[in-house]
Amino acid sequence: MLTQHVPASPDASTWPPPFLLYLGNAPDELAGKTARGLAQFRPQWCVGQFRGPDCNSPLDLPVMDFAQARAAGANTMIVGVANAGGRLDAAAIGHVVAALDAGMNVASGLHDRLTGYPEIVEAARRNGRHLFDARVPPATPVGNGLRRAGRRLLTVGTDCSVGKMYATLVLESEMRARGLAADFRATGQTGIFIAGRGIPIDAVVADFISGGIEWLSPARTDGGWDLIEGQGSLFHPSFAGVSLGLLHGAQPDALVLCHEPGRAHMRGLPHYPVPSLRDTLEANLTAARLTNPDVVAVGVSLNTSRHSEAEAERLCTQVEDELGLPARDPVRHGVGPIVDRLLACFPQ
Amino acid sequence: MLTQHVPASPDASTWPPPFLLYLGNAPDELAGKTARGLAQFRPQWCVGQFRGPDCNSPLDLPVMDFAQARAAGANTMIVGVANAGGRLDAAAIGHVVAALDAGMNVASGLHDRLTGYPEIVEAARRNGRHLFDARVPPATPVGNGLRRAGRRLLTVGTDCSVGKMYATLVLESEMRARGLAADFRATGQTGIFIAGRGIPIDAVVADFISGGIEWLSPARTDGGWDLIEGQGSLFHPSFAGVSLGLLHGAQPDALVLCHEPGRAHMRGLPHYPVPSLRDTLEANLTAARLTNPDVVAVGVSLNTSRHSEAEAERLCTQVEDELGLPARDPVRHGVGPIVDRLLACFPQ
Repeated sequence: MLTQHVPASPDASTWPPPFLLYLGNAPDELAGKTARGLAQFRPQWCVGQFRGPDCNSPLDLPVMDFAQARAAGANTMIVGVANAGGRLDAAAIGHVVAALDAGMNVASGLHDRLTGYPEIVEAARRNGRHLFDARVPPATPVGNGLRRAGRRLLTVGTDCSVGKMYATLVLESEMRARGLAADFRATGQTGIFIAGRGIPIDAVVADFISGGIEWLSPARTDGGWDLIEGQGSLFHPSFAGVSLGLLHGAQPDALVLCHEPGRAHMRGLPHYPVPSLRDTLEANLTAARLTNPDVVAVGVSLNTSRHSEAEAERLCTQVEDELGLPARDPVRHGVGPIVDRLLACFPQ
Repeated sequence: MLTQHVPASPDASTWPPPFLLYLGNAPDELAGKTARGLAQFRPQWCVGQFRGPDCNSPLDLPVMDFAQARAAGANTMIVGVANAGGRLDAAAIGHVVAALDAGMNVASGLHDRLTGYPEIVEAARRNGRHLFDARVPPATPVGNGLRRAGRRLLTVGTDCSVGKMYATLVLESEMRARGLAADFRATGQTGIFIAGRGIPIDAVVADFISGGIEWLSPARTDGGWDLIEGQGSLFHPSFAGVSLGLLHGAQPDALVLCHEPGRAHMRGLPHYPVPSLRDTLEANLTAARLTNPDVVAVGVSLNTSRHSEAEAERLCTQVEDELGLPARDPVRHGVGPIVDRLLACFPQ
């Protein structure tokens, strides 16, 4: 279900699929999340993976070197991981140069920019290939809060990394499977690679957060939905500003609340507890009303990957009873009841 | 009262006072606000002003050319205004070069960077002078929300440009006049010029808003107060993300609410009404409790510059009755009762 109804190719002309996914020496599953997201949601674009000897991130794709990938049709290598410190080390730089020399473009989701390395820039030039840094935001105006045409759904969460991107992508698949016009709007690097466009909202200058989202999801008049990938949490003391600007800029008609049951504390912050689902929902609805007074919640997405099937069912039922909203694990159960609720709230 | 107890000079070594204030052709009072703020709060650092033929921003300082300013002791020219479009035009670039050639350093609070113009960079080099772009933020870590030592007061507002910087500076003056250790912490370009240091919080990358404020106002153990300049409003749909990250990073013990009575709508947004004082206060207290559960409000600052003396008194009394907090116009009345309330809430 997850891969139906996707566009034939990204809008991006400088980093066309098919892709070789570069894992380097990604130490764990989380480090390889960009590659994993692409392989899961756009498998038809992924011809293989390149992994270093110390890579511990699982990925179910053929292992290839650069020449093999190019021979298999790869047009672009996607760099989704950095080594410790978030920077490209000498080995990774050499790999990027080798990929360019093999005839591929290279796209990166790292904070560390490809274009910051002269040897990479020179290799791109001599091979006539393109470099794309997904974390470099486009220039956008500041937000204006003006009501715009079209319907928008935003995923919000109790914390970072609770499954907002997955939920949004599965909503897109389900809505398209029902014949609805619905488009995932990416706000993080993995989502940008999957969608072919987007804005890395954590990398924009602070004054432009809401304006960046207004740019990402402009007025639409075809009766379809923009499904906007949320980021962070209003209750994460490091990143709540991003979440609030995103919420205001999205001007959402509908919210889907995302959560990972059993998480011990806010990501990276052992001294901060995870807020309750109800508090999170109320805070998001209250803040969202500034730019869309009619916003409603239509469902809850639970990441139950650490739970058994029976526990997952019990957790969903418990949340449904507590909040009166359909609750599902998108990866495990799909999001049918959430789309049902959305359509009940917003008849076509 | 406003200029007592200020430090002898900025921490900044590359743009030492005294200053020549560059107004260019500032079309109105607002356009000249950086120069006006410096002249009001740090008059002892300001030797004169340079104004173009079309300047309509009033400033009570001797008019000088660059040679006269240098002869009068000016070490640095402060560029606080741009022409339409926010960029330096050819005339302004020529003036900056002339100031450097006259032997002054040049500091700018514009988004448009001095260092982006080769002719300016070259003039600085050949004269051995420094350039300082106040809107270029320092590198800071992301926020961690850890409770840190020391007491912090933050000014928050119903809107942008309601007097948060003025209120914070007058609080500093009043507290220092009472022998208290209190330091203004600047978050905007005008405040940075006044304080000699700070962080232009609207120019940091979105992920670093709260971390930037944690950097600006670290743990302090002398029993004194950090007085942090607020920005924007939780109810401004363009900039609320900045305000929320600032609030979380500040971890304030005390809030002072700032407002301009009679404002017709949110700044720049005729389609958004100004929120009520009570709603603004409640939203800020609720959000602030994430990083400091014990936060309290200690007063209200009203910008009554468009009102008569009698109206100002009536407005303050009305707000005091409504919110149960001391309310004053800092410029007109000082902030004595607000500091009284602060000290009652936080005994030394």
